[in-house]
Amino acid sequence: MSNLINRYSEGVFIISATPFAEDGELDLSSTDRLVDFYLESGVSGMTILGIMGEAQKLTADESLRFGKHIINRVSGRVPIVVGVSGASLDNMKRLSHSVMDSGAAGVMVAPMPGLGTETKLNQYFKQVCETLGAEVPICLQDYPQTTGVQFSVETILKLTRENEQIVMLKHEDWPGLTKLSRVRTESDTGSTPRMSILVGNAALFLPQELQRGADGAMTGFAYPEMLVQVVDLHKSGKVDQAEDLFDAYLPMVRYEQQLGLGLAIRKEILHRRGLLKSPKVRSPGPSLTELDHSELNRLMDRLEIKLKELP
Amino acid sequence: MSNLINRYSEGVFIISATPFAEDGELDLSSTDRLVDFYLESGVSGMTILGIMGEAQKLTADESLRFGKHIINRVSGRVPIVVGVSGASLDNMKRLSHSVMDSGAAGVMVAPMPGLGTETKLNQYFKQVCETLGAEVPICLQDYPQTTGVQFSVETILKLTRENEQIVMLKHEDWPGLTKLSRVRTESDTGSTPRMSILVGNAALFLPQELQRGADGAMTGFAYPEMLVQVVDLHKSGKVDQAEDLFDAYLPMVRYEQQLGLGLAIRKEILHRRGLLKSPKVRSPGPSLTELDHSELNRLMDRLEIKLKELP
Amino acid sequence: MSNLINRYSEGVFIISATPFAEDGELDLSSTDRLVDFYLESGVSGMTILGIMGEAQKLTADESLRFGKHIINRVSGRVPIVVGVSGASLDNMKRLSHSVMDSGAAGVMVAPMPGLGTETKLNQYFKQVCETLGAEVPICLQDYPQTTGVQFSVETILKLTRENEQIVMLKHEDWPGLTKLSRVRTESDTGSTPRMSILVGNAALFLPQELQRGADGAMTGFAYPEMLVQVVDLHKSGKVDQAEDLFDAYLPMVRYEQQLGLGLAIRKEILHRRGLLKSPKVRSPGPSLTELDHSELNRLMDRLEIKLKELP
Amino acid sequence: MSNLINRYSEGVFIISATPFAEDGELDLSSTDRLVDFYLESGVSGMTILGIMGEAQKLTADESLRFGKHIINRVSGRVPIVVGVSGASLDNMKRLSHSVMDSGAAGVMVAPMPGLGTETKLNQYFKQVCETLGAEVPICLQDYPQTTGVQFSVETILKLTRENEQIVMLKHEDWPGLTKLSRVRTESDTGSTPRMSILVGNAALFLPQELQRGADGAMTGFAYPEMLVQVVDLHKSGKVDQAEDLFDAYLPMVRYEQQLGLGLAIRKEILHRRGLLKSPKVRSPGPSLTELDHSELNRLMDRLEIKLKELP
Repeated sequence: MSNLINRYSEGVFIISATPFAEDGELDLSSTDRLVDFYLESGVSGMTILGIMGEAQKLTADESLRFGKHIINRVSGRVPIVVGVSGASLDNMKRLSHSVMDSGAAGVMVAPMPGLGTETKLNQYFKQVCETLGAEVPICLQDYPQTTGVQFSVETILKLTRENEQIVMLKHEDWPGLTKLSRVRTESDTGSTPRMSILVGNAALFLPQELQRGADGAMTGFAYPEMLVQVVDLHKSGKVDQAEDLFDAYLPMVRYEQQLGLGLAIRKEILHRRGLLKSPKVRSPGPSLTELDHSELNRLMDRLEIKLKELP
Repeated sequence: MSNLINRYSEGVFIISATPFAEDGELDLSSTDRLVDFYLESGVSGMTILGIMGEAQKLTADESLRFGKHIINRVSGRVPIVVGVSGASLDNMKRLSHSVMDSGAAGVMVAPMPGLGTETKLNQYFKQVCETLGAEVPICLQDYPQTTGVQFSVETILKLTRENEQIVMLKHEDWPGLTKLSRVRTESDTGSTPRMSILVGNAALFLPQELQRGADGAMTGFAYPEMLVQVVDLHKSGKVDQAEDLFDAYLPMVRYEQQLGLGLAIRKEILHRRGLLKSPKVRSPGPSLTELDHSELNRLMDRLEIKLKELP
Repeated sequence: MSNLINRYSEGVFIISATPFAEDGELDLSSTDRLVDFYLESGVSGMTILGIMGEAQKLTADESLRFGKHIINRVSGRVPIVVGVSGASLDNMKRLSHSVMDSGAAGVMVAPMPGLGTETKLNQYFKQVCETLGAEVPICLQDYPQTTGVQFSVETILKLTRENEQIVMLKHEDWPGLTKLSRVRTESDTGSTPRMSILVGNAALFLPQELQRGADGAMTGFAYPEMLVQVVDLHKSGKVDQAEDLFDAYLPMVRYEQQLGLGLAIRKEILHRRGLLKSPKVRSPGPSLTELDHSELNRLMDRLEIKLKELP
Repeated sequence: MSNLINRYSEGVFIISATPFAEDGELDLSSTDRLVDFYLESGVSGMTILGIMGEAQKLTADESLRFGKHIINRVSGRVPIVVGVSGASLDNMKRLSHSVMDSGAAGVMVAPMPGLGTETKLNQYFKQVCETLGAEVPICLQDYPQTTGVQFSVETILKLTRENEQIVMLKHEDWPGLTKLSRVRTESDTGSTPRMSILVGNAALFLPQELQRGADGAMTGFAYPEMLVQVVDLHKSGKVDQAEDLFDAYLPMVRYEQQLGLGLAIRKEILHRRGLLKSPKVRSPGPSLTELDHSELNRLMDRLEIKLKELP
């Protein structure tokens, strides 16, 4: 199928929130609205069931139901990556095959906590690849702030070299700009194949990362249109304009990049933008105070003004 | 129902392994054999679906199926505690109610990672108690080596005081002897109700912990008959005899207390004792080398000799 | 002495870098230049020998020598806080008394790693206060990203209530906006005395934090004039103007807030601004690549343009 | 100098406590008594200023003074390894050269926290080796329970292969038996030179580790005579007798292996054995309760009985 992620995938893979009704049930009509909005914003792909998608708070049935619903709604217009990380390889296999059969474009895997050496990482991902089978493309998630697991550049290159199906890196180590540059320079060489690099970590350094060769972003910012425009402008050589646009949004990017709380902020903004019927986050999860709400009001107002002031 | 765990529960609650066939499927006939063996060994209770039970590698369906199978097999002869910890309160509720309806005696809950303050712990367990409902008795698992979450004595007392259903402590902080003494002395007072205290951490300090007032053990040692006898001897005042017996097993207790690897060792011993058809641990998981096997031979042989030498 | 920090201290306490020559020796003439620059920028205080000051890479003698040199150069014009955290209470006492005798205004103490309960934190800070003596004012550093130790609001309030000398909070938990609001609201009440709150964490949320009642900032941003102006504008009610100025610098604030690497960036900027003869960071420490240098060029150029565009 | 540690060093390198008087000052006359006792017990070497030696609570001056005092007292009879780990390479160099000049046999280095990849570990130890100079032999400490840093077998082998002066491994990863076997088998080959392996982690698995090829132990057990005899018996082929003796002490070995508290227990036993005038541990540090004292009484009494019962 031509829609699988590959070593040249690029653009904005928006990480979708998982919409819930006030009572905590999956809200599939908000899901449809959200999917349509993402597509209209011009995203190149979508990622679901990641940490931001509250995957760990869904039942196995809900994960499958939500995954298939999204895949059907998108209906092949853009590739969909599904987060499948977990403690059990069997569960990972079951979910992966099920969503791939339904039309997903690949899966995203973060290492289990405790994989503290290169040897352990190599063994783990070898096992993952064997379990999933060679026909399932993998996006490697490098996110030490949450997993506690560190990847060296050498390990990333070795993993993509020795496991043909590891085609994409979700880069969110922090600080990680030099790491990104090195993966860019040291892959696509004689010995190591190219790797698609999409940046996460709330896109806090997106202009710098594009400059260093990132292929795009994979994050859940509540204004996907900014991500899309910044990537497009950058690609068409309008580097300053891209960064000016990004900087106008930076106060909000920073505000959303509050680990944990950021999810509640994103859902609130998506709610205010008319996409989610409810900003509900499943328990246990963060919620916004009154002060947070008025602070967000102010930041949204200021953003609007700044956007108007842009040339 | 009279079989619920309560503030006076005591004895040995053996933590059951989850038997798998070589192909990784649940092995229910080994499960029956294991349950019968545990009961014949004289255990006072059973705990299932904990970390040692590889709960995180089961699907939700398997967890339920295994839980109900055990509960049916035991058929009320001893109380059964079910591990239900997880990132989702909804899933916790679903599993808890399902097993309680089938006849479980209570559930065991460890805190989620990241609950780094007393305030967060209090809020979390309040939420857990509300979600499960007051009729579900809870065993609080204090296991910082794995969860990264520390409980002070003050927090434990507050939790059991403010949440009537938190009736039992699985004590496995380490070093933790003074903590155990303090919980024993500072509960069952005017202000704070008594708490049943069962010790985990492979029972490495069982004689000392019984002396300090523990009500028994909750661990998965592959020779449950030792745990039962040590607790019985201690209760009948034969303190030296209890410790002599324990010390004879101590080289093996220490050998099993190898975090992670210990599970493979336990399953291997249970396999050799004719209880598990296969010592299979689900992937990703530890396995024994040839050297480990011969080391275990030697330790088992030495144990047999020591037991013969006991008066 | 009137120059001690107290519960009403406010403004910008700049965290000073520790200047080294290329060969790694303390560079006291750059130190003088830096001190003069900070004072001319309008800072209200100075903090030395913190993590950003590479305190852990100085010998005890160097710490004392550097501390006294700064104190002499400042000569009472602003209060100086000295970082004294460490594994040994005796060493903490020795350094504290020595700098207080030389004219320091107080000391900053972060908890040792491993203090995972409120009880342990209370005991530790009680010991610290007794060891230092009641006449040494303390700034409590709440920085879990580095120490691994979490403070609840309740613990912070209890510490300042029960230890009169704990007068100031260096707030850098993250996310931490609600925590800041709560400490502000719940101190300065009948039961709990007021606490000075200065924000760290690279001042990434400075406008929001001032709005929530922070008394100022304690951080090492390489453009201290921005911090001073933002705090001043905010205090004089020019809230929008303060945030506009801040936002112009935000791309750089974000760039400096790269844990570890940020120190090398700050020293490089201070070097480019003519203050440090060398941007040297002691081994083992981060250094900038060529790409980092050109990225920094670009960010500095863009900052200059933005500042010109401000009304 | 012939007394340097090397790739064939073996036997028991006892880790010395640092004796303090009741007022916290260094107690050098207890130090002399302790040194004489260690030598009479038959140790092959001594290690000072490690974690168990409370190195992080000494001033730089005290460390030097204590180090030189011990070196003088031992006077070349056995090699002395000095712990020099720390955040500053300059301080490490200063201490190392000073003790080597005084007659130390080598230094012990644990990695700084945060070195989470093989690449970082290789760079760090290359820097350490360059800083110390090739003539300073290094014992690599592999102790993830405290440092948070994991070494793979591959990394250990690479480090000893590429840095000729890294001649010894203090092995205390846990579980770590297979790691020990692999380092033993995979060093001393064509490509990788032999490495001396001494085991730490309180010697909890000493018989197993000797069987797997360890050259001895480096730990601070308060009964060094046991360690010496077990190693000697094992070397002379009396494997069962060695393990019988070890098992008699195992309840105490286990009791001392309580992270943190173990130090207070060891000092108390050394005090009771007439070696330390005071069991003082510097603040902040653990202390024993009344219950701990009577528990220790009981364990010491039981040990005496067991030793009499040995054939």
